Amino acid sequence: MARPVRVVVLGAGSWGTTVASLAARNTPTLLWARDADSADEINTEHRNTRYLGDHPLRADLRATSDIVEAAHEADVLVVGVPSHAVRETLNEISNEVRAWVPVLSLAKGLEPGTRQRPTEVIAECLPGHPVGLLAGPNLAKEILAGMAAASVVATQDERVATALQPLFASPVFRVYRNTDVLGCELGGILKNIVAIASGMADGLGVGDNTRAMVLARGLAEMIRLGEAMGAHPRTFSGLTGVGDLIATCISPSSRNRRVGEYLAKGMTTEQAVAELGQVAEGVKTAPTVMELARDHDVEMPIASEVEAVVAGRRTPEEAYRGLRHVEPGDEEDLA
Amino acid sequence: MARPVRVVVLGAGSWGTTVASLAARNTPTLLWARDADSADEINTEHRNTRYLGDHPLRADLRATSDIVEAAHEADVLVVGVPSHAVRETLNEISNEVRAWVPVLSLAKGLEPGTRQRPTEVIAECLPGHPVGLLAGPNLAKEILAGMAAASVVATQDERVATALQPLFASPVFRVYRNTDVLGCELGGILKNIVAIASGMADGLGVGDNTRAMVLARGLAEMIRLGEAMGAHPRTFSGLTGVGDLIATCISPSSRNRRVGEYLAKGMTTEQAVAELGQVAEGVKTAPTVMELARDHDVEMPIASEVEAVVAGRRTPEEAYRGLRHVEPGDEEDLA
Repeated sequence: MARPVRVVVLGAGSWGTTVASLAARNTPTLLWARDADSADEINTEHRNTRYLGDHPLRADLRATSDIVEAAHEADVLVVGVPSHAVRETLNEISNEVRAWVPVLSLAKGLEPGTRQRPTEVIAECLPGHPVGLLAGPNLAKEILAGMAAASVVATQDERVATALQPLFASPVFRVYRNTDVLGCELGGILKNIVAIASGMADGLGVGDNTRAMVLARGLAEMIRLGEAMGAHPRTFSGLTGVGDLIATCISPSSRNRRVGEYLAKGMTTEQAVAELGQVAEGVKTAPTVMELARDHDVEMPIASEVEAVVAGRRTPEEAYRGLRHVEPGDEEDLA
Repeated sequence: MARPVRVVVLGAGSWGTTVASLAARNTPTLLWARDADSADEINTEHRNTRYLGDHPLRADLRATSDIVEAAHEADVLVVGVPSHAVRETLNEISNEVRAWVPVLSLAKGLEPGTRQRPTEVIAECLPGHPVGLLAGPNLAKEILAGMAAASVVATQDERVATALQPLFASPVFRVYRNTDVLGCELGGILKNIVAIASGMADGLGVGDNTRAMVLARGLAEMIRLGEAMGAHPRTFSGLTGVGDLIATCISPSSRNRRVGEYLAKGMTTEQAVAELGQVAEGVKTAPTVMELARDHDVEMPIASEVEAVVAGRRTPEEAYRGLRHVEPGDEEDLA
């Protein structure tokens, strides 16, 4: 019998820890935590109180704060650090990961400066490895509480995704496949900006019609940019697009949605991020997305207003007033 | 100067009344109410308390209970009666409407027996008229309260839609155009079934991940059936598809969502409908949609479970368990 596939997850934030706990159910799994105390707590208490409160983790999930040890063990590498830390983290282990080990990203932001998606950064740091991602409408705490959810493993080669599916799946965690890596990854990145707009709508009390309009028109912007960049438009109607968008916008705990709500209540971006105490990828990604929109000559009025609010050039009230001045025409053409 | 276009709305339910009140802002508008007392109340009190509580209507909106008088006045006819009543209502006036008068449907169900969409029924009853619809994420009470919303006028001939847009638009009610009448109409019809599934999810307390999964996978079913019937898949990512779906699923007051919640709490379909006290189109439409799915050889596991629950053959708990047995494969292929 072949030896089991060892999964190594880098990054012990809420989602990295949750994915590691899911994998540990199926196969030997090691979680790298930057912080030695967190690693100890996971090994001895089977908890990650900093990010996940009292939620119990699988007892057979192991943790380490030694990234080189972690890299040596990987048959599959999962990158769960924030987007801005992917390059720096992988540079520490670029010579430590065995060849052909597939690398899955959990990150949902663009690298500032390079504008690269996490899978692009991974491909530069670990050339020659199959690269993909795991994404979908997945609130970490619900999954740890044993509530049902669905997710997608996206890799260009469908056979790789098929081999990875059972490592993460459980009777209540359904894992689908998709070969449109670009579309799946853009869905998770762009939805954070729409989630900020949706949170602003909640904070302003504009009603369910407007919330639905923002989500639908925001999705249309995501599809327009995605298609211009080469993604399959249909991907955005799936779990990694509209699914993730809806989960983010209906969940009270979603970080990007909450940042929008704080902004609508009059906080500055700095105050909102401080209040949150965690990374909200949409805040850092908004200006980079607007650069991409300009490069690809795509109209994104909602993302543009979010970027202006995050940069402090406009209030949420002004942003919503601004959106009303866009003339409604053909549904396909305009925002 | 040309004389103003007179809008006539048939049906003084919550949405028909709201659309009539929107049009009255722009042009002379007459609302037909089956019930003479409702017509009197609208004319004298500017309210429709049966459906809209104390919300004030525009004082210049006129109402009548004489459908022939209404038909004679129409330069544009809006059909706001429930789907099962469209044929019977239009048969009363098929010789009373002037030729070429465009007819817009507000109905979001299929006619039982014939399986026809409202615009198909209209085309049979009033042959030769341009037929279209007005649809989108539009909760009546929010619109009457002056909150912002967006909607779509869909007609095959874009020039007709362009001429109709200003009759309904206001600074806070944005009206887009679309020429995919079939796709826009199917969005509004099929979303009611997903809304019942979403309401069942709420009633069972399954969490935001599962709610988002049901909406995303439900949308995938809507797109599959729509594409098989000849609609443009992209239309379902717009206001009449995902927009209407989200508004229906996040709004506490949505009727179809509430029916699902009542079913999850153990009521029979009859009890749930009685508790609601209004028409929930999804209940009547679910079996007809499953007939269409079989005819077009399209898999719709969520709609199928909803139909089984509505018909009393399965409990909501069994339906949700059933959905878990569908094997997740390629995101595009399977449910």
